[in-house]
Amino acid sequence: MRMYDIIMKKRNGGELTEEEIRCFVEGYTKGEIPDYQVSALMMAIYFQKMTAAETLYLTKAMEYSGEVLDLSAIAGIKVDKHSTGGVGDKTSLALTPMAAACGIPVAKMSGRGLGHTGGTIDKLESFPGFSTALDSRQFIDNVNRIGIAIMGQTADLAPADKKLYALRDVTATVDNLSLIASSIMSKKLAAGADAIVLDVKTGSGAFMKREEDAFALAKEMVELGSNAGKHTIAVVSDMDQPLGFAVGNILEVIEAIETLKGNGPADFLELCLTLGTQMLIAGGKAESEEEAREKLVSTIENGSALAKLAQLVEAQGGDASYVYHTEKFPKASIVEPILSDREGTIRHIVCEEIGICSLMLGGGRETKDSVIDLTVGLVLQKKVGDYVKVGEPLAILHANDAGQAAAVRRRFLASYDIAQEVVEKAPFIKGVITKST
Amino acid sequence: MRMYDIIMKKRNGGELTEEEIRCFVEGYTKGEIPDYQVSALMMAIYFQKMTAAETLYLTKAMEYSGEVLDLSAIAGIKVDKHSTGGVGDKTSLALTPMAAACGIPVAKMSGRGLGHTGGTIDKLESFPGFSTALDSRQFIDNVNRIGIAIMGQTADLAPADKKLYALRDVTATVDNLSLIASSIMSKKLAAGADAIVLDVKTGSGAFMKREEDAFALAKEMVELGSNAGKHTIAVVSDMDQPLGFAVGNILEVIEAIETLKGNGPADFLELCLTLGTQMLIAGGKAESEEEAREKLVSTIENGSALAKLAQLVEAQGGDASYVYHTEKFPKASIVEPILSDREGTIRHIVCEEIGICSLMLGGGRETKDSVIDLTVGLVLQKKVGDYVKVGEPLAILHANDAGQAAAVRRRFLASYDIAQEVVEKAPFIKGVITKST
Repeated sequence: MRMYDIIMKKRNGGELTEEEIRCFVEGYTKGEIPDYQVSALMMAIYFQKMTAAETLYLTKAMEYSGEVLDLSAIAGIKVDKHSTGGVGDKTSLALTPMAAACGIPVAKMSGRGLGHTGGTIDKLESFPGFSTALDSRQFIDNVNRIGIAIMGQTADLAPADKKLYALRDVTATVDNLSLIASSIMSKKLAAGADAIVLDVKTGSGAFMKREEDAFALAKEMVELGSNAGKHTIAVVSDMDQPLGFAVGNILEVIEAIETLKGNGPADFLELCLTLGTQMLIAGGKAESEEEAREKLVSTIENGSALAKLAQLVEAQGGDASYVYHTEKFPKASIVEPILSDREGTIRHIVCEEIGICSLMLGGGRETKDSVIDLTVGLVLQKKVGDYVKVGEPLAILHANDAGQAAAVRRRFLASYDIAQEVVEKAPFIKGVITKST
Repeated sequence: MRMYDIIMKKRNGGELTEEEIRCFVEGYTKGEIPDYQVSALMMAIYFQKMTAAETLYLTKAMEYSGEVLDLSAIAGIKVDKHSTGGVGDKTSLALTPMAAACGIPVAKMSGRGLGHTGGTIDKLESFPGFSTALDSRQFIDNVNRIGIAIMGQTADLAPADKKLYALRDVTATVDNLSLIASSIMSKKLAAGADAIVLDVKTGSGAFMKREEDAFALAKEMVELGSNAGKHTIAVVSDMDQPLGFAVGNILEVIEAIETLKGNGPADFLELCLTLGTQMLIAGGKAESEEEAREKLVSTIENGSALAKLAQLVEAQGGDASYVYHTEKFPKASIVEPILSDREGTIRHIVCEEIGICSLMLGGGRETKDSVIDLTVGLVLQKKVGDYVKVGEPLAILHANDAGQAAAVRRRFLASYDIAQEVVEKAPFIKGVITKST
């Protein structure tokens, strides 16, 4: 089987067989097929699309290109959760303790990644001593003992996806639904859970700017997960403004903790409850959405979710006292309000710009070698639909450099669109996608 | 300017600017832009096509990626000739002496290339001592002195095209009209002639199997050459069966010599006269097609074309006595007829198969390091429309290996389609394309 023939077949609109796809993925992973043939194939796929069968073959081939986690030593239905990412997305920090407190075994692989803030792992490392460098045995033991463990993503999980994504990223072949879906799902499948709940973001701070694209991706991934034999559900949620109020690593950890104490922002709590509901139903811990929601709310009311977070932090070497005393976290040297220069109702926030403000302050990674400043960020005081007067704070800025602070202040103000008329807020949860059978 | 943006623009159907195309061609030639980005761009071009303007920019950028020959030291209008190639195509061997004998300065760059037989240079090297390793000065001096010189293609002529073609060849991005046209024309333009006559082949032995594709390519190249400021004419000719009777290096040289002596095959002579007519008109040596044709025919009748070939051979170190005594050329050890196993009229010859027979005998190059056997090949005895009885020879096989000879015999017979009904022959010259102004 020659790579040339595979490219030609796809270019001419043919459907690749499972063997052809496996041959290309294996050959590429081993370095036997050169980048230039694979990028030509990716561009041909961009134009000719892939069928559901081809997408499944690609996903499975990438899943099995490296290690596939065996979580069978953990009793119960393991439910994984994945977000396509956005600004202020601290969902895993609050949701996983809530789900674990309801009896869902949480065995989660998380990444650091590039972005406006660090990944879940970076945020968890705000707790002094916390480590995600567990081996598979410790990981499984922790889940069996306390119901939750979070592990750094190993390099060998779906290496074909890693290599392919890096190539697509520089050859303008990222934005194809099948390729995006197979990239996400190959890693999720290799991570070994029985069921997967996906949070697909849409809006100005999301990869999928348009709602219809987010729904299409959600459907594609649900289809793919189901065809791979995993119970898969997707929630499409708003990312047209930051999630909650806090953007920045420690600031987000504190907001997640406050949410578990019952003081969380309404949109963020709603997202945790919506995703958690699907996790509980998929994991057999609730019969109905009402029951699931009640159980989740009770983990906040009775303090069991907060206790579960403290257990997680302690089990992985962190100082759990921070969970109960968030004032212990280090603070940025400059903490100042950003005051509104206009009066009116906030019509829109260019969400991606708020993320860039966080990045400019040092809160995220521009390259994989960047060092993250965990203390910096922004805490919004006004969001879409809120009324603001001149001189009222739009946000509190946390910075460690006066020059950066000044630049961010200007950029932040420019990202707020303040109108004179009444603003109608779009629904925060756009929809829930399950396999139509 | 980033290559990523260039790929994205073309992928999304945009028209690249002259600067964008020059940037990519220069960067790629210098090795600053990697293969994997260029192959993605080539695939995007395959799907989105290129406009006439983009094709011209690409052609010019490739033309100027290396040396551009300056033939201004040669008096008169220099007319170059190029063929898209086929089986038994020995046109340059006969046509260039005819044109030179009519006063057209022939300053021709030729290649070796891969294929069923060698290139023009390999064929000319059948004359003992003949060399095409001239430097630019010798080349120009020879044209000024005797009106004709043939030089091996220098490595630095359109190096961008060479690199790009090699990449397209392994990424299924060859068959795009604009890319094919710009590849051919960039080399022709760099070769420095004032006018270009193109021989575009069509049929089972040609790159362009379908006549409409050949016409489209011919039009694209004429447009391109004209827009680049060169008088360009294209002839579309038949390659649905081998040209003439001889396929194989020395066998073709002998056939070309016989043609200059007035004993050539009708189709081959017709092609030389048709292309030559366009050369003479473009070069200002004839006012009308009738006049051009008469002049060309007279170079055969008065022996001036044969004398010009002898002059060329001698001027480049070869033994010109072979021109007058073709019996001096070495012969293959096995010379045997291939007898027909059927009776009827020849309806079709799978022309490409005859080329592969020549390659199997050792007459062509499979890789650039292959050594060519100049003596082997086939001389057809029957062509389309001819009647044949069982036991009559279809061809004379020239081989140096009995095993190869046996394999070729089977393959050759299978490539002949012999029918019982009357066969209508398609016209040999399909059309002449000039710039409609």
